Amino acid sequence: MSRPIMSRPATQPSVDDAREVGLRRTGPPPARTVVEPIAPLVDGGAFPAKASIGEPIDIVADVFAEGHDIVVAEAAVVATDQTTEHIELVAGHNDRWHGRWTPRHLGSASIQVIGAVDPWATWLDDARRWTDGQDLAVHREIGARLLEQVPTPLASPTPLAELPHRRIAELVAGLRGGTDEDLAAIIDDTDLASAMSRLALRDPGAAARVTMAVWVEPAIARCSAWYEFFPRSTVLRSDSHTNAPDGHGTGTGTDGPHHGTLIEAIGRLDHIADLGFDVVYLPPIHPIGTTHRKGPDNCAEGGPDDVGSPWAIGGAGGGHDAIHPELGTVEDLARLVREARGRGLEIALDLAFQCSPDHPWVTEHPTWFRHQPDGSIRYAENPPKRYQDIYPLDFTSEDWAGLWSALADIVRYWLGLGIRIFRVDNPHTKPFPFWEWLIATIRAEDPGVVFLAEAFSRPRIMERLAKVGFSQSYTYFTWRESPGDIREYFGDLTTRCIDFLRPNAWPNTPDILPRHLQDGGRPAFSIRAILAATISANWGVYGPAFELLEHEPLAAGSEEYRSSEKYQLREWDLDRSESLAPLLRRLNEIRNDHPALQLDRHLSFCDVDGDQLVAYVKPAPPGIDGRPAERILTVVNLDPHGRRSGWVDVSPAQLGHDWDSLPWGSAFEVVDLLGGATYEWHVGGNWVELDPHGLPAHIFAIRTSGIRPVAS
Amino acid sequence: MSRPIMSRPATQPSVDDAREVGLRRTGPPPARTVVEPIAPLVDGGAFPAKASIGEPIDIVADVFAEGHDIVVAEAAVVATDQTTEHIELVAGHNDRWHGRWTPRHLGSASIQVIGAVDPWATWLDDARRWTDGQDLAVHREIGARLLEQVPTPLASPTPLAELPHRRIAELVAGLRGGTDEDLAAIIDDTDLASAMSRLALRDPGAAARVTMAVWVEPAIARCSAWYEFFPRSTVLRSDSHTNAPDGHGTGTGTDGPHHGTLIEAIGRLDHIADLGFDVVYLPPIHPIGTTHRKGPDNCAEGGPDDVGSPWAIGGAGGGHDAIHPELGTVEDLARLVREARGRGLEIALDLAFQCSPDHPWVTEHPTWFRHQPDGSIRYAENPPKRYQDIYPLDFTSEDWAGLWSALADIVRYWLGLGIRIFRVDNPHTKPFPFWEWLIATIRAEDPGVVFLAEAFSRPRIMERLAKVGFSQSYTYFTWRESPGDIREYFGDLTTRCIDFLRPNAWPNTPDILPRHLQDGGRPAFSIRAILAATISANWGVYGPAFELLEHEPLAAGSEEYRSSEKYQLREWDLDRSESLAPLLRRLNEIRNDHPALQLDRHLSFCDVDGDQLVAYVKPAPPGIDGRPAERILTVVNLDPHGRRSGWVDVSPAQLGHDWDSLPWGSAFEVVDLLGGATYEWHVGGNWVELDPHGLPAHIFAIRTSGIRPVAS
Repeated sequence: MSRPIMSRPATQPSVDDAREVGLRRTGPPPARTVVEPIAPLVDGGAFPAKASIGEPIDIVADVFAEGHDIVVAEAAVVATDQTTEHIELVAGHNDRWHGRWTPRHLGSASIQVIGAVDPWATWLDDARRWTDGQDLAVHREIGARLLEQVPTPLASPTPLAELPHRRIAELVAGLRGGTDEDLAAIIDDTDLASAMSRLALRDPGAAARVTMAVWVEPAIARCSAWYEFFPRSTVLRSDSHTNAPDGHGTGTGTDGPHHGTLIEAIGRLDHIADLGFDVVYLPPIHPIGTTHRKGPDNCAEGGPDDVGSPWAIGGAGGGHDAIHPELGTVEDLARLVREARGRGLEIALDLAFQCSPDHPWVTEHPTWFRHQPDGSIRYAENPPKRYQDIYPLDFTSEDWAGLWSALADIVRYWLGLGIRIFRVDNPHTKPFPFWEWLIATIRAEDPGVVFLAEAFSRPRIMERLAKVGFSQSYTYFTWRESPGDIREYFGDLTTRCIDFLRPNAWPNTPDILPRHLQDGGRPAFSIRAILAATISANWGVYGPAFELLEHEPLAAGSEEYRSSEKYQLREWDLDRSESLAPLLRRLNEIRNDHPALQLDRHLSFCDVDGDQLVAYVKPAPPGIDGRPAERILTVVNLDPHGRRSGWVDVSPAQLGHDWDSLPWGSAFEVVDLLGGATYEWHVGGNWVELDPHGLPAHIFAIRTSGIRPVAS
Repeated sequence: MSRPIMSRPATQPSVDDAREVGLRRTGPPPARTVVEPIAPLVDGGAFPAKASIGEPIDIVADVFAEGHDIVVAEAAVVATDQTTEHIELVAGHNDRWHGRWTPRHLGSASIQVIGAVDPWATWLDDARRWTDGQDLAVHREIGARLLEQVPTPLASPTPLAELPHRRIAELVAGLRGGTDEDLAAIIDDTDLASAMSRLALRDPGAAARVTMAVWVEPAIARCSAWYEFFPRSTVLRSDSHTNAPDGHGTGTGTDGPHHGTLIEAIGRLDHIADLGFDVVYLPPIHPIGTTHRKGPDNCAEGGPDDVGSPWAIGGAGGGHDAIHPELGTVEDLARLVREARGRGLEIALDLAFQCSPDHPWVTEHPTWFRHQPDGSIRYAENPPKRYQDIYPLDFTSEDWAGLWSALADIVRYWLGLGIRIFRVDNPHTKPFPFWEWLIATIRAEDPGVVFLAEAFSRPRIMERLAKVGFSQSYTYFTWRESPGDIREYFGDLTTRCIDFLRPNAWPNTPDILPRHLQDGGRPAFSIRAILAATISANWGVYGPAFELLEHEPLAAGSEEYRSSEKYQLREWDLDRSESLAPLLRRLNEIRNDHPALQLDRHLSFCDVDGDQLVAYVKPAPPGIDGRPAERILTVVNLDPHGRRSGWVDVSPAQLGHDWDSLPWGSAFEVVDLLGGATYEWHVGGNWVELDPHGLPAHIFAIRTSGIRPVAS
């Protein structure tokens, strides 16, 4: 490995200058101002906080000094290109200062919160206590001396340019010998006060600085809609509809479906783009091993005609940097990527760092595998699941550095073919330091690469993967069914985890056909799609199976699909009349039209009096994609089996107000983006009744401009 | 200043070894195990957490690795003397490990949480999945090789001594060629498993380490009862009772009271010790300036016979290292300290870093004061209060280092005379870096010194003073009157602030006669004393005025005392029949008998259905001062004007149980330590009625051993 050693970004917030200076006999005293960083901060600064292009970030810090002097604060945000943006911070309650910054550059950024005692503001504050008839000579002179300390010529940066030396001399003269009116004018000069505040912040000796590290990713890391399909399976063309043999939305020709190709996959892009998705995720496209190849329905020993699991990577055709010959060529993939991008779609590939027994590395790099005393390699297990067709890699072998380097080269290879997004298979079975190194290494070369962690593991493990760099994370969404569970889970994700973990909510995956989809019928699919698309800025579906309401489990009690594409080819009839495509299309349209659904921050649940109803508000500040501020209120009946009703409480805070400005009963209009109707709602309780066999949800755009503080 | 530069203790938790190692071509891979520190941790490790001798500290960390290998964790606590104590950590829910450590040495300690993958435990875990009839040769061999990797001769530390090489050889032979019974015996050998776990933790390459810094103070920093009095005032002896002229518990002889002395103060120690207090705090005992000396009731210009404010420090007799001649001599103070200590009392002095205009430093060190353009020094203000008799020091002057050093020498001087505890006057008007430096400097020389911050300022300022080193902090207790306010405030102090701020609750101070004491009569004094003494492990009273129910304000709406000792001598008749002394004595007795009241951690409020009642439970783990675990439940009627009643809910958690083991209605006995009666209480609601004119509170010792899970 020839590249430099990974050096972890210095993400600890730097301590106040005051605390580094210590005490010397000479030199200036430590800065008096205290800056305590509040947000964005992950584990006290141990990891950079996540941010994305175009997403407003709240910068929060406690800034204060001893005594009664006035302090001033700002944030200086230094982007990767070393340009600095100055962000105004405003004092709120209890010495807490707030500002808002919207990232415009990919890569690392550092938010330096600067606080300083402001001598001029303190003098002005003092002036408010001067009494009539008091001899002001001393006070005037103090002010004059403060102005005389302004450096001449003024140092950059430019904000002080409005305070030229000539003007300072005039002000000093006005203070020393001017009239009462001159004094009053100087005291009331807000431009002067503002320039003097900035001067205080630029005083290297007096200002305290604390730095918070941020990692800025592309907007698609924050908001994305994923559609997964197996390119080796195919879509039934309308001219072959008559071949569809059964009622499960699948079809097999008389000789079985043929093996699809990457070129054929291009033919599916229009449909996916039409549904409004923006990421097309393909399971592994590499050669598949033949040793212990799995047969249909995860049969332990497949026959010679079985296609095997795409995750059993590597064979005669090559390993992780090869394409399965039956799928096509490198050129085909490059064309697929281009065709997708032409439709606003990104192709995401799978990074599954494991090998079939036939992978070239098994013989070329035996040290990359852990051999048992009898010389064999133990196959992978994720108890109780067994993967007889897969060998795990040994990330901590003697030649760990060689393996890590080779895996980074795999990522680089696909980046070179235009891939920008990776879904990473089972990252929780590889060491965290490997991911931290790999993601940092790749991002140092290309800060726009997006990684989705497919870890359905314990909470701390999933959170750690997010902290060490994964852009997005699969979640427990798939198994959160009750209003209370959904509220607790997404409440936690969007508060405690908001600065490091971006949830991606999937109603299904090829590995997970959840119970409620098995027995809930079409309403269950609708409910779960609406929930995922509105509660999480990132969502995705295992596409054909979801569109076509595929719901037969391998066996009773199993979450595996029957006739899963993981082990056999399928042919999908996407034109079936019961297809969920219209709802998926409308959901993505609504998401694209409404920035509130493109953000996870500030999700807020409504109190609901009624079983099986969940309701939540998502706000968006103004300016995202140039759009105005907005609030989206979603109400979902989680019961696929029957009509549910109840009262949904909307609080003033959920409308951006407080009880004083928007008392109980104040009315506002909501427009149902799903159903189309307009309703009058009120602060306080609102009656809702939802029938899952019709539309199981409202997605309301709140007409915030029309909120009337009038009791009904 | 000749002493070394302050170097701030490195309190940032060190990052995992894994994350420091980075990636090199050679050498071992980064450790796979993750340790995320949880507690005790202040601001992500920016400050050391507070601890005290004898107080059990919960050590909490999240420890895990990728995949399914078993991890093991422990804490190694390194005390100031570099001795290491190994603390067992036990895995709880969601990868969170817990342990408990009780400090025994003053000064800095570092808690290093160590986590490692445990290969032997993983092998044992694997063994549980072996199936009958399986060929175990490979598994046996893997186990044998793990044992063969145990270093020979075993490295220290000693815990591995029980695994001698001879025994290892036997075990290896048993695995390779032994019977099924031999294998089973090895698998069931818990001593072997335990030794192998410790070995994993000692493996420098495999173990991850995170360090949390702690500062250990004397027990009196955690639990103390303060009694403040002005030694220049005197106590009316019983033979002069007839001189008492009025009904406010004060007396002035015909010629006014004489100026008390430190030697006379010795005569008051028996009384204070009898009341059960353990800290005697004297306001400043230094010479008092004459310029702009204050007269009685804060009259701006006192007469020549006025004694002036003790906080106007410095005059002809000297400055902060001198004793007011009328109080006595350095020898007198040393005797007072000795006599106090003989009675179990510590004398606390006041550190008021400010000067009267007559302080020697005003002429000897003019640069230590900020001069106005006309050469004058502006007197101190704490708006709206004005201190014409006091000059503030300039902590950031050109000679700031000289001033800071001189102030440290002041502290050293009084330490040399036996003082161990300081009450620090208005620390929030001096720079935080000064306090951080001063306290660190003094503690580096003597780790047992205790500092109480008298800052009634904004929350973040008070918290920062605690973070930078103050042992205890005055609080807003004095102004928290309603059940909701008390619950919110102490709830916050004992959760968010628990690791850095130790509250000290004072019902009154010479500066604060709160409204409720002015008009609440004796019941108000009782209520506030009971509250302070039971809700906070540290409490204090401005003694004579509190004992004698002094309650006349300077003026309507004022919180200043009329005829305050701050500006005049007083003579107190402590033998008056209405004295609150019996209650104070009983409260301190109860506190001394019950470790639960000597801790602030784990305070828990009861839900109460009833106005003006507040109820809370404090638990103590076993072993504090050698006593068993206990729980104290206090219920207080906060209304001094009338009888109040209501239902007090006790939850199973407040009794150390859950609802399964202690269902609603389970009965337990409580013994009222104030009233003496024994009651049967129940999980769930309990009826309470309290008359402030009798006993306004219950302080119940819960008979935890007798808790019966029987519905009533």
